[in-house]
Amino acid sequence: MAGKVYLIGAGPGDPDLLTVRALRLLQAAAVVVHDRLVSPEIMALTPPAARRIPVGKAAGLHSVPQDRINRMLADLAREGHDVIRLKGGDPLIFGRGSEEAEHLAAAGIPYAYVPGITAAQGAACSTGVPLTHRGLATGVRYVTGHRARDAALDLDWQGLADPDTTLVVYMGAANMAEIAAWLIAAGMPVDLPVLAVAHATTPREMRMPSTLAQIGADLARTPLEAPVLFIVGHVAGLYASAALPLPRELRAAHLRLVGHG
Amino acid sequence: MAGKVYLIGAGPGDPDLLTVRALRLLQAAAVVVHDRLVSPEIMALTPPAARRIPVGKAAGLHSVPQDRINRMLADLAREGHDVIRLKGGDPLIFGRGSEEAEHLAAAGIPYAYVPGITAAQGAACSTGVPLTHRGLATGVRYVTGHRARDAALDLDWQGLADPDTTLVVYMGAANMAEIAAWLIAAGMPVDLPVLAVAHATTPREMRMPSTLAQIGADLARTPLEAPVLFIVGHVAGLYASAALPLPRELRAAHLRLVGHG
Repeated sequence: MAGKVYLIGAGPGDPDLLTVRALRLLQAAAVVVHDRLVSPEIMALTPPAARRIPVGKAAGLHSVPQDRINRMLADLAREGHDVIRLKGGDPLIFGRGSEEAEHLAAAGIPYAYVPGITAAQGAACSTGVPLTHRGLATGVRYVTGHRARDAALDLDWQGLADPDTTLVVYMGAANMAEIAAWLIAAGMPVDLPVLAVAHATTPREMRMPSTLAQIGADLARTPLEAPVLFIVGHVAGLYASAALPLPRELRAAHLRLVGHG
Repeated sequence: MAGKVYLIGAGPGDPDLLTVRALRLLQAAAVVVHDRLVSPEIMALTPPAARRIPVGKAAGLHSVPQDRINRMLADLAREGHDVIRLKGGDPLIFGRGSEEAEHLAAAGIPYAYVPGITAAQGAACSTGVPLTHRGLATGVRYVTGHRARDAALDLDWQGLADPDTTLVVYMGAANMAEIAAWLIAAGMPVDLPVLAVAHATTPREMRMPSTLAQIGADLARTPLEAPVLFIVGHVAGLYASAALPLPRELRAAHLRLVGHG
């Protein structure tokens, strides 16, 4: 009898931000096929005896092609294993979970999704910058700034240039200068606030407040390590007044408290 | 010494979709100020001795005004309580978490956010309809279809009318017929798929697949109980081939298995 494949969102990186269901499935896992960007803190929650198969993108490294991942999941399930397919963020927001599901369905293999906190939510809650806020943003939009090698950035700039909607750019570090230029050309204010957040919610979190006009130069001067996400819009301006401590500062404060207690 | 306020996302309804951090904070809560729409299954996780204060919107019921909630949170914290402020979905996506935080900051009261799975993610993972999918949607956008009494729906229809971006409408049941008409007028295809999902991820989940042209009539014929969310876009067309079982069916199947095991 074939096993079942669980397409699980691992969230932004902090293991405390896994869902309860994801944690339970991870802790019982025998086979974990995971994106390379899933944080080491989360991989540490899988049983020591579990078989771990890293796949997917990692900056600069060879990645396993999607069709090979699809076949691998089906093959492992056919061998009778329940398979944990662990993805950064949410499986159905830039996660290609539904592509893997289509392949499983065609192969007659049962599957289920478990949602995960997407990076935009993790970055918002960690930094203190909201995705919607009365008077500043009536909605939020997620796009990807990644492009295939040598391909043009194929985004509807005119449609994106809405200063009342928070724009979150995933996987955009390499192209953010160009994205900012296109947004300005489409009418977005040059001084529109931008907050770049790397490794959101983990001890490695880094933040760079900037503007559409400045973000390209700021990134050139201080490159951020992937994964980086950009929150573009008036809400990012709240960072000046409402920034919350970095995760590693909160942790240090907590350890001090415990030490003195 | 003042307590700390935790602005926590309760997720879409299924208690298994709380984050690990949210669950831990809930289980240790002494005071919980919660939206009325937070599911009974989740409220049941708070300690029996915890003080529970329902606030916020519930269809047809009197709701506590936002400024009174702001003052209440500050007052409870000043009394020395750590306060759990529990909101449906995510506190920073249509949750007004950052408005409450502004008030707390002005009062000198410490606070932190805990993200939650937003309804769009819950509905996607439960129904099997992805929010992005290669060839069908390059991004996703969340808007609210709610409007103040007698006010016009103030949305940028031209900007929203992008069939390559999945549009998720929150709180739109009362206005969805009008929203669909405006989207059609702005150039969206009349047969663009729409999936309405009520009470996503709970045993009360209901789904209604439709189209922009039909959704108004379908809702008039079969009204759905709030909260309802609408997934608008080509991805919703996958429901015909990729629909997953309803949560109550999964549960029934599980109980049968356990019974026979």
